[in-house]
Amino acid sequence: MTRTIVASATREIVIGFDQPFCVIGERINPTGRKKLAAEMIAGSFDTVIKDALEQAACGATMLDVNAGVTAVDPNATEPALLVKTMEIVQGIVDLPLSIDSSVSAAIEAALKVAKGRPLVNSVTGEEEKLEAILPLCRKYNVPVVAISNDETGISMDPDVRFAVAKKIVERAMDHGIKPEDVVVDPLVMPIGALGDAGRQVFALLRRLREELKVNTTCGLSNISFGLPHRHGINAGFIPMVIGAGMTSAIMNPTRPQEMEAVRAANVLNGTDPNCMTWIRSYKDYVAPAAGQPHAAPVAAPAAAPSAGGRRGGREARRAAMGGGDAV
Amino acid sequence: MTRTIVASATREIVIGFDQPFCVIGERINPTGRKKLAAEMIAGSFDTVIKDALEQAACGATMLDVNAGVTAVDPNATEPALLVKTMEIVQGIVDLPLSIDSSVSAAIEAALKVAKGRPLVNSVTGEEEKLEAILPLCRKYNVPVVAISNDETGISMDPDVRFAVAKKIVERAMDHGIKPEDVVVDPLVMPIGALGDAGRQVFALLRRLREELKVNTTCGLSNISFGLPHRHGINAGFIPMVIGAGMTSAIMNPTRPQEMEAVRAANVLNGTDPNCMTWIRSYKDYVAPAAGQPHAAPVAAPAAAPSAGGRRGGREARRAAMGGGDAV
Repeated sequence: MTRTIVASATREIVIGFDQPFCVIGERINPTGRKKLAAEMIAGSFDTVIKDALEQAACGATMLDVNAGVTAVDPNATEPALLVKTMEIVQGIVDLPLSIDSSVSAAIEAALKVAKGRPLVNSVTGEEEKLEAILPLCRKYNVPVVAISNDETGISMDPDVRFAVAKKIVERAMDHGIKPEDVVVDPLVMPIGALGDAGRQVFALLRRLREELKVNTTCGLSNISFGLPHRHGINAGFIPMVIGAGMTSAIMNPTRPQEMEAVRAANVLNGTDPNCMTWIRSYKDYVAPAAGQPHAAPVAAPAAAPSAGGRRGGREARRAAMGGGDAV
Repeated sequence: MTRTIVASATREIVIGFDQPFCVIGERINPTGRKKLAAEMIAGSFDTVIKDALEQAACGATMLDVNAGVTAVDPNATEPALLVKTMEIVQGIVDLPLSIDSSVSAAIEAALKVAKGRPLVNSVTGEEEKLEAILPLCRKYNVPVVAISNDETGISMDPDVRFAVAKKIVERAMDHGIKPEDVVVDPLVMPIGALGDAGRQVFALLRRLREELKVNTTCGLSNISFGLPHRHGINAGFIPMVIGAGMTSAIMNPTRPQEMEAVRAANVLNGTDPNCMTWIRSYKDYVAPAAGQPHAAPVAAPAAAPSAGGRRGGREARRAAMGGGDAV
């Protein structure tokens, strides 16, 4: 069984087919967030701290940390800023981190200060990237996100994207990195632009699981780009990718609709033993009357991560069956 | 390609792998609804009429019609009551109907008055049922729901349930009924009682699609029986069964969360061309702020059925991309 292990200073999480879906919180990222970028450049981390605490409270399994403030010379500024951001986040939450940068020097700097076993986000199939990032992953013994594009860009042909993923996994093995430490991102296209984007990614996920036997991830909200009520599309997409074998996603854990979809899919996929996380999260949920919108507030979930914990036993099973019928 | 055709007096609907998910409205059913049963026995059909109109307005593709008021002698009372209910429903909505009864005489009486091409709900693998129901389906040239249990009850072994479904399809062929006119119900167990119920049904659905090549249905809300916030579990289950190949379900179309999941899954499964139904349904949806529950009302969808219509073209594609970014 494929097991990708990530860890904070004190907490180990397993990403795997038999594990609860791994929610990688995407919020600590100044890309497209001008105010956050300005704050980070000015040395203020109030928003970073707020985002870290909020994502942890909402049930994130891990946190992605990106300090790409698009300076004139990222090589000069990003390593120090990423290190500073990592240190602040590590100081306030006990979740494994994903080191998210396109600057190799920033990734190495972050690896030096990271506690536990972080995830490196990311390598691609580009030669330069492969030879810069994979040796770092080997040196620090950490897993890596492998994005299935290369020098030719993102192929619209899913077979090509599969081939790029396979190449990265093989190259990682050449560097002494096990396939279980490569988490493939098959690349999700907006369904509004490419009507086949859903079926493409479901087919790719099945192949990645059955043929390459790797864990997978994606930038989840890409799927709904350009459509109204994106959270509804995202919330429908989550159970479908989980059903197709996806084991993690980089997404916004502060969105209740998406997190409800993750928790429901965990129940249905058999990775929420005795429905304990579901029951804890929704036992006080008040169902609206028939014909009304689903408007009742979701009970605030416990801050415990959605993956890695052990739950079960006869008592839990009794609790599951005593949960009552809300309909 | 498997195509199950159902029709009202004037409207034809195709159930199939390349079609929007077929939502069979479950509300017109006195089982467990004492007030409705009492009304129907007393000859009052106000609730039936309300339920028919409401389900059609909420986007049901078809309506299930059940008049099983559990009288002392169903054979004496149910045929006339089912005929009356069918006639009333046919008089006010233009949707194909599903004739839902365990009384063969009631099914035949309903078939005599049904307009278009109704669905018979249901036959099982029991000898007596097979020999009573299949000749009726042949005689009236209508499709039938095949529930995968037999004299031995409902097997907990999905291989046995598959074998029962296969037997029914083969027996139907012996009676001159094509496999495309058999819609298999693989039977959905409550996930709160059987943690493997989800994975069982997903695997069964894939086999039914790939090996038997039949359309499928289920009583959808069974999955969440006994759990809190059942609509959340149902809404997660819908995209997963659609991803696994299910093509219809008997469910409550007046529940916005479940219908949103159906519409999202249709987009993602490529059966909502250019996302037109999604955009029409949610173009005015107001997204709540980050960190807030998904509380905004869903725009009332058009009464058009979710299956069978033709939409598309360049103009539609432009509309899809102009839908705006709600996040």
